[in-house]
Amino acid sequence: MFDLHYTVMEINFNWGIPDPSTFVWKEIVEITKYVLETQHEKALQYAPAQGIEEVRYEISKFLIKRGFSLDEDYILLTNGAKEGIFILSEVFSNVVSEEPTYQGFISTMKYKGINVYPIPWDNEGPRIDLLEKIVKEKSIKYFYVTPVNNPMGRVMSMERRKQLLELASQFDFKIIEDDIYGFYVYDSPPLPAIKSLDKEGRVIYISSFSKIISPGLRIGFIAHEEIEKMVKIKNEINHQVSSLDQFIVGEILKRELIDNIINYARVLYKKKRDIMVQSIKEYFPQSVECTYPQGGFFMLCENSKLDSLLLLKEANRRGVKFVPGTEFYYSEKGKGSFRLSFSYENKIAEGIKILGELLRQEVSL
Amino acid sequence: MFDLHYTVMEINFNWGIPDPSTFVWKEIVEITKYVLETQHEKALQYAPAQGIEEVRYEISKFLIKRGFSLDEDYILLTNGAKEGIFILSEVFSNVVSEEPTYQGFISTMKYKGINVYPIPWDNEGPRIDLLEKIVKEKSIKYFYVTPVNNPMGRVMSMERRKQLLELASQFDFKIIEDDIYGFYVYDSPPLPAIKSLDKEGRVIYISSFSKIISPGLRIGFIAHEEIEKMVKIKNEINHQVSSLDQFIVGEILKRELIDNIINYARVLYKKKRDIMVQSIKEYFPQSVECTYPQGGFFMLCENSKLDSLLLLKEANRRGVKFVPGTEFYYSEKGKGSFRLSFSYENKIAEGIKILGELLRQEVSL
Repeated sequence: MFDLHYTVMEINFNWGIPDPSTFVWKEIVEITKYVLETQHEKALQYAPAQGIEEVRYEISKFLIKRGFSLDEDYILLTNGAKEGIFILSEVFSNVVSEEPTYQGFISTMKYKGINVYPIPWDNEGPRIDLLEKIVKEKSIKYFYVTPVNNPMGRVMSMERRKQLLELASQFDFKIIEDDIYGFYVYDSPPLPAIKSLDKEGRVIYISSFSKIISPGLRIGFIAHEEIEKMVKIKNEINHQVSSLDQFIVGEILKRELIDNIINYARVLYKKKRDIMVQSIKEYFPQSVECTYPQGGFFMLCENSKLDSLLLLKEANRRGVKFVPGTEFYYSEKGKGSFRLSFSYENKIAEGIKILGELLRQEVSL
Repeated sequence: MFDLHYTVMEINFNWGIPDPSTFVWKEIVEITKYVLETQHEKALQYAPAQGIEEVRYEISKFLIKRGFSLDEDYILLTNGAKEGIFILSEVFSNVVSEEPTYQGFISTMKYKGINVYPIPWDNEGPRIDLLEKIVKEKSIKYFYVTPVNNPMGRVMSMERRKQLLELASQFDFKIIEDDIYGFYVYDSPPLPAIKSLDKEGRVIYISSFSKIISPGLRIGFIAHEEIEKMVKIKNEINHQVSSLDQFIVGEILKRELIDNIINYARVLYKKKRDIMVQSIKEYFPQSVECTYPQGGFFMLCENSKLDSLLLLKEANRRGVKFVPGTEFYYSEKGKGSFRLSFSYENKIAEGIKILGELLRQEVSL
């Protein structure tokens, strides 16, 4: 009855929020000053819908780090990767998607009333055998995938990437590769993007600098050989992304600060991942199974007896936040699961301990 | 035959581009430094879809300058006013619009396949008698208006604003007031927004800082008593506008730099308007009639014998750019008209002289 008087410490396992220590804000201060002093008219004026050419050029060079090269003419800047998804959803039909997957993709599909066929993962990636079955039965145009899976943290194998692309070629569909966590693989070097295998313009590559530089600077992009129609849609939605943000990100790339940022962040997120994995071993009942995050910001935990919405309610009262598993499925699945993010929070062990206590009560019901 | 060897000077009467001398870029350098030093985590991190609360609070106070007050809870930040229009277009039906009007509104309606009933202006504003006729015949839900009209530069009278609101109340439709040029009235103080007369939440107010502070910083907004649904749509499209841009604009407002900017800009644009009006008197044939811009960035010129696309082609060869009149009409009108912007260009007399020469050739055909 005195619950309201507790000082509740907030522990956030909620969203894919970057650790703020990865923000090079001092460099950004200096860069903003430099950009405004050297480009003050261009940085504050309207810019082309597709994005400022010199910034797209820097992004084009940046893509080589993901294993492929594509000219700046084929890059469209978007307000985060989420806007890239929204732009694509304006032309979508006959969509298949991995499942579980990024809740922002699911929510855009639901908002648009677009029917999506879900394909589950095994340890290697989305199950190609099931995808093949669907593409043989139906006329499929798009397949959505997060190769470093959100919410599970599994990483699609190279072999599976090849198989997926072969299938796309055989059955003439496009792959939407959402690669925002592409650099964040922790126990081995990151695999090159699926796009790096693409010789036919089959992969529409979506990414952003939200998880690398800053999500407050809204610089995402779509890279694809047929970009014109998407540029027109971008223009209809909001003309362009912030000119100043474009120049800031472009200058960070130009000064080659990005490798240091990514290297620092990878070490940090690996450490946080390890703390979460270790804490779960220590505090969670064995009946709750969690994915092992090879990459990304998240893991997905599950117990069939669990009601994750009830768990969330209890957890919130103790100050712990996470996202219930239902968010990552198109249909009624995921009730017994929940996603934990280890990217932002520093009190990981404390939060997992609290969740462990609640899980022991819940699961034993 | 030596046309290609001329050095063609570019003269831009094209878009609603602010004069870059209105950008307070030195203050923006200092403010960005201050913002990043005091708020570096928040300015670079994710922000709420509706917008950062303290920034919305500053905008709420700013609205008093337009004659009304609305709590920050009822403000949604958008990527420019254009995104505000796109968000509204997601819920639109039964739309009536002034005509001629902002080409960005027309193009979004066409993109969405939304049928729009056009209402012409007289000198006072959109013709209420014709609007009344339509709303009596059809079930109308929205009426779109730019009270400082783009492309004509006419300003809707106070009496007409009242009549419009009364009609909306009587026939239960909403007014979309696109007020981005609201401050830019040159021969008298700006009239308060239509929203200032609104007691029933009938006016959905759209504006932005693109024409006042900077269009490169993408900070527009919608102000309305029922904002929740629009916040959800904003979240689906791209989560949020740039956090850094939000803080920069918020801080400019907080430091009360805005009155000085607007006062400087009004004097500047009035002077440019006067130069354009004077040059037209001097160089255009009398058979070409141009609106007198009481406000805004533009005027619309017309001659029924004219083919404005042909004129544009000729003008482009001489380095002069403008927008043909067809862009400002829903149907096949506007062929004999063209819009001239006086906001950006400094070589106004030179450009008008060139157009005058071409017009004498064209119109005499």
